Amino acid sequence: MASARISVRELARQVGVSPASVSRVLNDKPGVSESVRARVLDGVRVYGLPGQAVGNTGGSPFVGIIVPELDNPAFPTMAAHIENALFQHGITGLIGSSVAQGGVDEREYIEVLLRHGARGLVLVSGWHAHLKHDHRWYRQLTAREVSVVFVSGLVEGLPMPSVGTSEASGARIAIRFLHDLGHRRIGLAQGEEHYRPSVNRLRGYRETMGRYGLADQSLYAEAVYTMDGGHVAARRLIGQGATAIITGSDVMAVGVIKAAQEMGLRVPEDLSVVGYDDGPLAVYGHPRLTTVRQPVDRIAAATAWTMDQLLKGQEPPQLHQRFDPTLIVRDSTAQVRQDS
Amino acid sequence: MASARISVRELARQVGVSPASVSRVLNDKPGVSESVRARVLDGVRVYGLPGQAVGNTGGSPFVGIIVPELDNPAFPTMAAHIENALFQHGITGLIGSSVAQGGVDEREYIEVLLRHGARGLVLVSGWHAHLKHDHRWYRQLTAREVSVVFVSGLVEGLPMPSVGTSEASGARIAIRFLHDLGHRRIGLAQGEEHYRPSVNRLRGYRETMGRYGLADQSLYAEAVYTMDGGHVAARRLIGQGATAIITGSDVMAVGVIKAAQEMGLRVPEDLSVVGYDDGPLAVYGHPRLTTVRQPVDRIAAATAWTMDQLLKGQEPPQLHQRFDPTLIVRDSTAQVRQDS
Repeated sequence: MASARISVRELARQVGVSPASVSRVLNDKPGVSESVRARVLDGVRVYGLPGQAVGNTGGSPFVGIIVPELDNPAFPTMAAHIENALFQHGITGLIGSSVAQGGVDEREYIEVLLRHGARGLVLVSGWHAHLKHDHRWYRQLTAREVSVVFVSGLVEGLPMPSVGTSEASGARIAIRFLHDLGHRRIGLAQGEEHYRPSVNRLRGYRETMGRYGLADQSLYAEAVYTMDGGHVAARRLIGQGATAIITGSDVMAVGVIKAAQEMGLRVPEDLSVVGYDDGPLAVYGHPRLTTVRQPVDRIAAATAWTMDQLLKGQEPPQLHQRFDPTLIVRDSTAQVRQDS
Repeated sequence: MASARISVRELARQVGVSPASVSRVLNDKPGVSESVRARVLDGVRVYGLPGQAVGNTGGSPFVGIIVPELDNPAFPTMAAHIENALFQHGITGLIGSSVAQGGVDEREYIEVLLRHGARGLVLVSGWHAHLKHDHRWYRQLTAREVSVVFVSGLVEGLPMPSVGTSEASGARIAIRFLHDLGHRRIGLAQGEEHYRPSVNRLRGYRETMGRYGLADQSLYAEAVYTMDGGHVAARRLIGQGATAIITGSDVMAVGVIKAAQEMGLRVPEDLSVVGYDDGPLAVYGHPRLTTVRQPVDRIAAATAWTMDQLLKGQEPPQLHQRFDPTLIVRDSTAQVRQDS
């Protein structure tokens, strides 16, 4: 997708001055008349700034990367990785947040981006991931030749590719680790159940706890995907005798730790906590989080590659790509207390 | 800047089918022939999706919001506030990060955005804020009728408006607060000195410490604006006998706290720490940060208002707007220890 930029020589020819004059004007040096200066700048307005050819051409339309919000650091981190991976393919990704757009309907916001020239959309944890939304209208985007890649979540029955982490596998590896540390009362604190990643995580949690013979519905708490959500869920789960809590995001894990500390529990001595994401938050807090790491690099690379294929009019060989997460062990987990 | 969207009725008229058919196609309902369906979708491709008029029109060019990186949560938070404030003016802001664009030269990245149709640029902590960069080329943007607002930092001698926080005032209020708590060995840990906000903060620090008769060059540590930078600076300042450390960002403050804890010091009992930003990080960590709050809402509102003026071809009445920060007192500061 490389596009050549105009050369200094060519720009000089177009506006009828010497290459040296173009150079002087562009470097804001003296020795050119006002009229020459005006001609060069007019030329720049028409032909763009001369320079080397750049891989990342602005001549082609851009791809919009829509995240729900930018306050949870996991989203800007994911968006930045996708922006960078698109850049590797010569595609410009520009980031917007639905919440920052006055909380508009996703459809409205997508229309705005398309009118600004977006030819592709990377939708991160968008309406596609929420089971309560009507997904049929996404079909129109295909009909209108807009390339769409879903990140985290997918829509069944649509030809739109998706990329993400296997949330069920994340629950599995976290529970296995905690089980090895002697924990039996392992709670799950996560966000809304109408959100597909939550559904998957809950499935993984139930299956794994069932396999260990530890299933107990009272150890599951649904809240919202925020620090306060983690706080609320933790109070309930600790009340139910949980010695360890796995969560749906690092932000929620931070809320769980705060709730535990307020209740006079030490983390990890009295309560083990496992985050999800391994975003910037995981290492900023104290204790640093043991967390299920989403492979953002691989997700971003697969998203960009798939988008590139779509923009070239090619079918991606795989419709839904899911990557297994890894467990990053830090300081928020420990062996269960002997008296638990 | 409101632009009417085509109505269902008008779209139906344009493509020669009934409004009911348009409705059925758009809602993916049965009962329309393939040829009617194709005509409606062709119409949508040409005229856009019918619906209510939207305030935020995609018909006008967008404004690019460039931040250096998205991993420090202060930047996505600032960008989201600016995006939202622009939205209030009917302007679409799209966010990009120079680092995510392969760390390209700011000039190159700006060219890419302009070719994608950006008519304005909000540059947050960009090259304009770095004294070592040559700023003359920004002049070309004016010549090319690109509207530019600088956030945090400014360029003297250019007609480009800037908006930001008074960093000197931030240092002043933090030192005054710590002085009232009995601290006398107050260190400053901040980022690179060729960065204008650092210069301003250092000036405020020196003036205020001087006024208290506490000036001591060994209590100033320059590092990088990251958690590791805070860590490195803290080790040095603690070694110099600092009982309190003010910093250039919340991220650095988190690094200071980590260093203190590793050295066996308790925060705030043995060391008081003051952050800067009051971004999401300030409340996620433990202890929660006492921090100098940048008034992001006011900065974002002033930035958007100024951009709106520029896009309308009007002069903003004030070239450089600086807001005074406030001190948010949380758990990372306390009275100096009696034996200090």
